[in-house]
Amino acid sequence: MPQPELPEPAHAEVDSMLSRKFGREVANYFAGSPLNRLSFLRTDHPFLSAALKHPSTSFLLFNNMSPLAKDPTQLEYVKLEDVKPLIGEDPYSKSEKQIIEEYNSTITIPQLLFLGLDESKISGFEHDIYHGAPYFAIDVTPKGTIKLKAEKLIEIIKSRGLQFVEGRMHMSLPAPQAAIYAQARALLDWNARNPFCAGCGQPTLSINAGTKRTCPPTDMASITEKGAIDSTIVGEPAKDRPDCVTRKGISNLSFPRTDPTVIMAVLSADSERVLLGRQKRWPPLWYSTLAGFVEPAESVEEAVRREVWEESGVKLGRVVIHSTQPWPYPANLMIGAIGQCIPGGEEIHLKHDPELDDAKWVSMAEVKEALEVGTSGLGEDAGPDYKEGGLRLPPRTAIANRLLTAVTGGFLEEHSHAPKM
Amino acid sequence: MPQPELPEPAHAEVDSMLSRKFGREVANYFAGSPLNRLSFLRTDHPFLSAALKHPSTSFLLFNNMSPLAKDPTQLEYVKLEDVKPLIGEDPYSKSEKQIIEEYNSTITIPQLLFLGLDESKISGFEHDIYHGAPYFAIDVTPKGTIKLKAEKLIEIIKSRGLQFVEGRMHMSLPAPQAAIYAQARALLDWNARNPFCAGCGQPTLSINAGTKRTCPPTDMASITEKGAIDSTIVGEPAKDRPDCVTRKGISNLSFPRTDPTVIMAVLSADSERVLLGRQKRWPPLWYSTLAGFVEPAESVEEAVRREVWEESGVKLGRVVIHSTQPWPYPANLMIGAIGQCIPGGEEIHLKHDPELDDAKWVSMAEVKEALEVGTSGLGEDAGPDYKEGGLRLPPRTAIANRLLTAVTGGFLEEHSHAPKM
Ligand SMILES: [Zn+2]
Ligand SMILES: [Zn+2]
Repeated sequence: MPQPELPEPAHAEVDSMLSRKFGREVANYFAGSPLNRLSFLRTDHPFLSAALKHPSTSFLLFNNMSPLAKDPTQLEYVKLEDVKPLIGEDPYSKSEKQIIEEYNSTITIPQLLFLGLDESKISGFEHDIYHGAPYFAIDVTPKGTIKLKAEKLIEIIKSRGLQFVEGRMHMSLPAPQAAIYAQARALLDWNARNPFCAGCGQPTLSINAGTKRTCPPTDMASITEKGAIDSTIVGEPAKDRPDCVTRKGISNLSFPRTDPTVIMAVLSADSERVLLGRQKRWPPLWYSTLAGFVEPAESVEEAVRREVWEESGVKLGRVVIHSTQPWPYPANLMIGAIGQCIPGGEEIHLKHDPELDDAKWVSMAEVKEALEVGTSGLGEDAGPDYKEGGLRLPPRTAIANRLLTAVTGGFLEEHSHAPKM
Repeated sequence: MPQPELPEPAHAEVDSMLSRKFGREVANYFAGSPLNRLSFLRTDHPFLSAALKHPSTSFLLFNNMSPLAKDPTQLEYVKLEDVKPLIGEDPYSKSEKQIIEEYNSTITIPQLLFLGLDESKISGFEHDIYHGAPYFAIDVTPKGTIKLKAEKLIEIIKSRGLQFVEGRMHMSLPAPQAAIYAQARALLDWNARNPFCAGCGQPTLSINAGTKRTCPPTDMASITEKGAIDSTIVGEPAKDRPDCVTRKGISNLSFPRTDPTVIMAVLSADSERVLLGRQKRWPPLWYSTLAGFVEPAESVEEAVRREVWEESGVKLGRVVIHSTQPWPYPANLMIGAIGQCIPGGEEIHLKHDPELDDAKWVSMAEVKEALEVGTSGLGEDAGPDYKEGGLRLPPRTAIANRLLTAVTGGFLEEHSHAPKM
């Protein structure tokens, strides 16, 4: 499968002090979103309602986290008329306050997200100072009280020859679509994965256009059961759920989770070789950069040194952060770094954290050749110039590839007057 | 209050290609931990048990997230004998498997963390290939079934003239202690904040030496209630809790959460001025860099551009990541960046996301002077050379200060042969 184009870095053509000094920004796959998220309008239901109903609006559907698509290289969007049978005429007709007050844990509300406006679409929606074509996403997985309606919607969609594409199709999308897909998938997955409050164990409700989950103080379900005994005080809903700490002030439990991850190209002390590792489940000859999760109260630079030592025994000094990549499986932020071994720290030891099957030092020339002829997705074929037995590396859509490209390319040119951080 | 020394960057003295090219690494306050976390030994109860009992071992206590200290500039550690009345003879005498099987949601287990080994202490614990002085942390907040024991322990500790220091004492600790404090606080807070499973709503159990919360399949509490009716099958505990998705494969819900945050020094297109902002609740004249949370499926570079535009209306091009800082209130990873405005993008507009009270462009000279004479913690006094009415900025322990120091210092020196990312 051909590798898609990568995103254009923002304002790549603009000459600036930073671009003269550090070169062009590297934009990684899944970044480069064409949408303005307008995060501050997510509680503005009149805005969301108007955006939902505009003719330029697109809805991206997901079934069990698989997106609707024409084929693996092209997402397919549907229109409001298509989804009305599931989401109703206007899910934003009531205020957020009212929706929270009417919360009923026995009723399934279809998960709807506002993703943002594509400002490049000039025929889009106009609202105050913002304009563009609105994008929403909906989780149509059949479940709960919307099971039958969702099944019916899926049936109609499929009868048009469309499909919910499973697996790794995401790596074949054009860069702007990949970014929209990633945003929608990450947020739908977070909502689906967190139906209960980690603070008190009670079910939660999605608000803020899909970017917050709140722990409502009341539940109509139990009011109904109890025959509204507790709601006799006029204007005061029944306080029928136990207290929860997330209702006092702001709690991070209410907001989407993103797991920072480090991934690093590691140079030998003499800058002649690169450290690569392979996981047990990969095919033979396949290697990549080392990676791991950032731990609580650890800087990225410390996490890079810790992970490299734990997985390979190699000891690093200076670490520089290169670029970052969102990775929506389910919610990682890949922080790409370049680290250099301290003199004498190159010895490989795989027995600390026995996560890797192998780690080895590879010459710059061999890495460079593999980047030219030996890259592809895991399990896919390399290009026509690949020679059997040669090193295999991840495709350009992976930040590991971009980091290795940087260290075998211009990144290591030395300058006598080094800038200071 | 005098500002503490910042951490020494790792191997700062080592000359390498990366350090020649990018200068010395900037290590921020709360980073620079002296401990080797040995994350891969956290399920090894014989190791943890031996570390717990070694004479060189230190225990850091927290009461309501306030650490035990001699005074605001010095943590105080206690010994195993002091904490045995609370944690028992050996909390690691049973295997993790056995502890999960015996899970009883009605019993409070004191939260204990293994932080790591300080390898610089040569008289420390020796185990296999690892050696050093072990560090543990314990949450002694009186609650649940350990309330009385915890109160008694706190009383004894206080009778020695020690205190649990509240508030911002953490900014006065020597850098290595600040890093140990941050690691312990972040993990204790995460455990305390997540008593329930977000996947199924049932109570969870802390394992992996305090770095994982699991959703046990059984609960002895309900077995007892039911008179052991379900546990008649020998060797098979009662399957008395509903299924949970976190028990199938690996779920991020089981692991500590870290919230990536961007914080950025923003340069005008001509590199002559810096964008500063102030929040409504700050005293007059106080400014800092802009900051905000990274959103799902967003690169750090995109988050920097989005937050700056949302909060100030300013439009950025190239973004470079400078350094990072763990920030344990409660679980942030501050990713420090430097961004540059596109030509004509400097106009300030505060009405998108009305989060700031003010934002303004400040000359390099004014920022430089404020860094010399006008820094301190919020609400504290500036140094003796500060002139009334002058700009106030955050202290050296804040990454905002380090970013502003970078852009007003050597960071902006230009080079004719610019390296490429
Ligand atoms: Zn709650
Ligand atoms: Zn669970």
